[in-house]
Amino acid sequence: MQRLGPWSREAWTVLALHLLRSSRSPNTGGLFFHCVQGGLVQSSAREFAEARMKTQLELNKEKSSFVIKTPKGTRDLSPQQMAIREKILNAVINCFKCHGAKGIDTPVFELKEILTEKYGEESRLIYELKDQGGELLALRYDLTVPFARYLAMNKIKKMKRYHVGKVWRRESPSIIQGRYREFCQCDFDIAGQFDPMIPDAECLKIIHEILSTLQLGDFLIKVNDRRVVDGMFAVCGVPDNKFRFICASVDKLGKMSWKDVRQEMTGKIGLTPDVADQIGDYIQQCGGVSLVEQLLQDPKLSQNKQALEGLKDLKLLFEYLTLFGIAEKISFDLSLARGLDYYTGVIYEAVLLQSPTQQGEEALGVGSVAAGGRYDGLVGMFDPKGRKVPCVGLSIGVERIFSIVEQRMEAEMLYKKNPSFLTQLHYCEETGIPLVAIIGEQELKDGVIKLRSVASRKEVDIKREDIVTEIQRRMSES
Amino acid sequence: MQRLGPWSREAWTVLALHLLRSSRSPNTGGLFFHCVQGGLVQSSAREFAEARMKTQLELNKEKSSFVIKTPKGTRDLSPQQMAIREKILNAVINCFKCHGAKGIDTPVFELKEILTEKYGEESRLIYELKDQGGELLALRYDLTVPFARYLAMNKIKKMKRYHVGKVWRRESPSIIQGRYREFCQCDFDIAGQFDPMIPDAECLKIIHEILSTLQLGDFLIKVNDRRVVDGMFAVCGVPDNKFRFICASVDKLGKMSWKDVRQEMTGKIGLTPDVADQIGDYIQQCGGVSLVEQLLQDPKLSQNKQALEGLKDLKLLFEYLTLFGIAEKISFDLSLARGLDYYTGVIYEAVLLQSPTQQGEEALGVGSVAAGGRYDGLVGMFDPKGRKVPCVGLSIGVERIFSIVEQRMEAEMLYKKNPSFLTQLHYCEETGIPLVAIIGEQELKDGVIKLRSVASRKEVDIKREDIVTEIQRRMSES
Repeated sequence: MQRLGPWSREAWTVLALHLLRSSRSPNTGGLFFHCVQGGLVQSSAREFAEARMKTQLELNKEKSSFVIKTPKGTRDLSPQQMAIREKILNAVINCFKCHGAKGIDTPVFELKEILTEKYGEESRLIYELKDQGGELLALRYDLTVPFARYLAMNKIKKMKRYHVGKVWRRESPSIIQGRYREFCQCDFDIAGQFDPMIPDAECLKIIHEILSTLQLGDFLIKVNDRRVVDGMFAVCGVPDNKFRFICASVDKLGKMSWKDVRQEMTGKIGLTPDVADQIGDYIQQCGGVSLVEQLLQDPKLSQNKQALEGLKDLKLLFEYLTLFGIAEKISFDLSLARGLDYYTGVIYEAVLLQSPTQQGEEALGVGSVAAGGRYDGLVGMFDPKGRKVPCVGLSIGVERIFSIVEQRMEAEMLYKKNPSFLTQLHYCEETGIPLVAIIGEQELKDGVIKLRSVASRKEVDIKREDIVTEIQRRMSES
Repeated sequence: MQRLGPWSREAWTVLALHLLRSSRSPNTGGLFFHCVQGGLVQSSAREFAEARMKTQLELNKEKSSFVIKTPKGTRDLSPQQMAIREKILNAVINCFKCHGAKGIDTPVFELKEILTEKYGEESRLIYELKDQGGELLALRYDLTVPFARYLAMNKIKKMKRYHVGKVWRRESPSIIQGRYREFCQCDFDIAGQFDPMIPDAECLKIIHEILSTLQLGDFLIKVNDRRVVDGMFAVCGVPDNKFRFICASVDKLGKMSWKDVRQEMTGKIGLTPDVADQIGDYIQQCGGVSLVEQLLQDPKLSQNKQALEGLKDLKLLFEYLTLFGIAEKISFDLSLARGLDYYTGVIYEAVLLQSPTQQGEEALGVGSVAAGGRYDGLVGMFDPKGRKVPCVGLSIGVERIFSIVEQRMEAEMLYKKNPSFLTQLHYCEETGIPLVAIIGEQELKDGVIKLRSVASRKEVDIKREDIVTEIQRRMSES
């Protein structure tokens, strides 16, 4: 019990509250604070539950030989979490419907061949089903490829649709960032031939509307064009067969410094330093329509037919964005590459400029909360005659939004870093928590824990070794 | 084109409407009628789309080497189908919420071990994921086992929850019955210790409320108790190791005659004819509380402790059902066995007494639309200390309900077997279908198809070989 030492009185109180809460109610979606290097960091209640479970399993090895948990990178949603999720999804779906989209549904798995050669380097993240005889299947990786398959299969040439559903990716999960292997996507797409850049501008308008409605704090939508990216690689002298790898490298700028990205390009991927530096000069630029105009005059880039088309479309796009009154939130960003194979034109990604930290909240870090782009060739890949249906769409990353809103709501309830003792007791009274375990300096010295009955306000010192039995006794009585 | 002959004028009109509709709008979820042995039978639009796709693929083999389709036993939902589904789900969820349940969500896959030894003979229907390194996973087979895992993992002793989500079973799909390999379930469960039979009665009340609300026609809820089933097997002399197989056999009564079920019992499973006949005497009985009382006096069955407990509980259950005013829809049915391993007490299954056929509709056949039961041991299987949480619940088979409502709505719209010609034209005007292809006796004789413009009401005879070009020409003009 020596490690009790460095914990603060407050940390122990919160821990005790949680122990009591989680044994009493289904609210296991709450946050649990524990002590690392003197500070409080967050961890999901599930991790805590697993830790507890493991300890118990060690005591009961004869009873059960495996840990009861959800698969890696997945989680349950408690009723409280479901309520938050429902609120967010309703806001998103409402916006999609206002823009005239109709909902569809597709199976969670597709024929494996349908997903092949659509995701570039990320294909390795696809979950495949076991061959149990019959068709070879894989869980969908996104909602875009199933939509393209749906259009081709039903010979639909024009459609505004939305689709809310789970997708699966075998990524190394980093749960604290709101990244999971199973997560929900909300997609809006426009299929069909329209005047240039109008559907593209509508997609950006929708992202803007949703992020504004959800009040997640300040955000920025980065925009680029896949043809500009490819044109840039071409004029810088990147060999064709390295486009895909360089794409993935470029996407890391922002998460990594240019120095490290350059190192990856010249090292593992094998670009010459000169080529890498030329790319570096481009991708470190971002701005508004003036940067588009400047690059239209760029002696190298303007000579590339693809890049030129992309830049002209971006110029037109900015005109619509200005008309929509959202141009100020849009940044033309040459480092945005988006590695999926199917993009053919405009691409975009929305990021929160700062996490919505309030006093006492932990920063969640900046992350992408929406993304999308134009994919004019994907439907044609599924059509027996290769007939193309131009498409543009977006995907809202509700999982990350959900983490942010959830954290904010929890924080608004109690979980301040340094809540006053009285606030905590008040919270217990409000929420019906019956017992509080208090460990202050005196209790640490005496090797005891002060147990307070919230209802009667009576406090009794209990020896540390007896505390579990005492809590169990009181709980069974109540 | 010789096979044009036996088709009725109406069938051709419907076909032509469909050809036009499916090339114009995303409504591919509609029903398509084709001719088999002189009559009209239904088939999903998807099958039709596949057939068309196959023909095209044969013409374009060089372009695509695989058929674009959804995996076997699965389907997409069009916007029209989504609207129907949403209406049904809202009615179901609303009822669950009125009874105090809160929603949860769980991952679509679980650790494979979680699903092991829960489903008896049906375990072979579980979809497993490919071993790509890491944990061994399987798609959930129902929402009950994930709920039990959730309760155990979070140490929840008491909860009313609902869960709406997809489940997967590798069954031989029979789409016409509304059976799929991927389908949606709506589950309501009550976990916790309560006075006997009150939660069980509430579950039956909920099934009654939902089936009444959805107006699916007359229904019956069959009720039995797993302990009565097991007790019956025991007193009839079925060896312990054959319970599971006999259970599955008994469940077939209704779909198969007693003679055939008896044949299976004495043949493949190897019961003696005498044992089979004793079972037969029991399982051909059904009735109300008077049958329960009669069996409580049964010299054999009443000697079996398990059966006696089950019968006493059923008697109490009927008291509550009478208080709830729903006893008349409940039938104590000894042939109801429900083969899943986890049931421990009351079991039930709701069937529609007749399909809601209206004049001109095809019968869908009688099928189970809701089912459930008590499973007091399942949570304990996941608890390291084996602590039990008694549970009872129900699952609404929305897929079958969906098929019925969808068929009825389509029928209400147009798809009568013999709609008058005027009705059909009126329908075209209402829904904006621009062209009608008419093939009557005269047209058959002349080898032409009469093409009518719905707007102008002008009719022109077109040679059969020119009809496709003509329709395409007119469509491209409109």
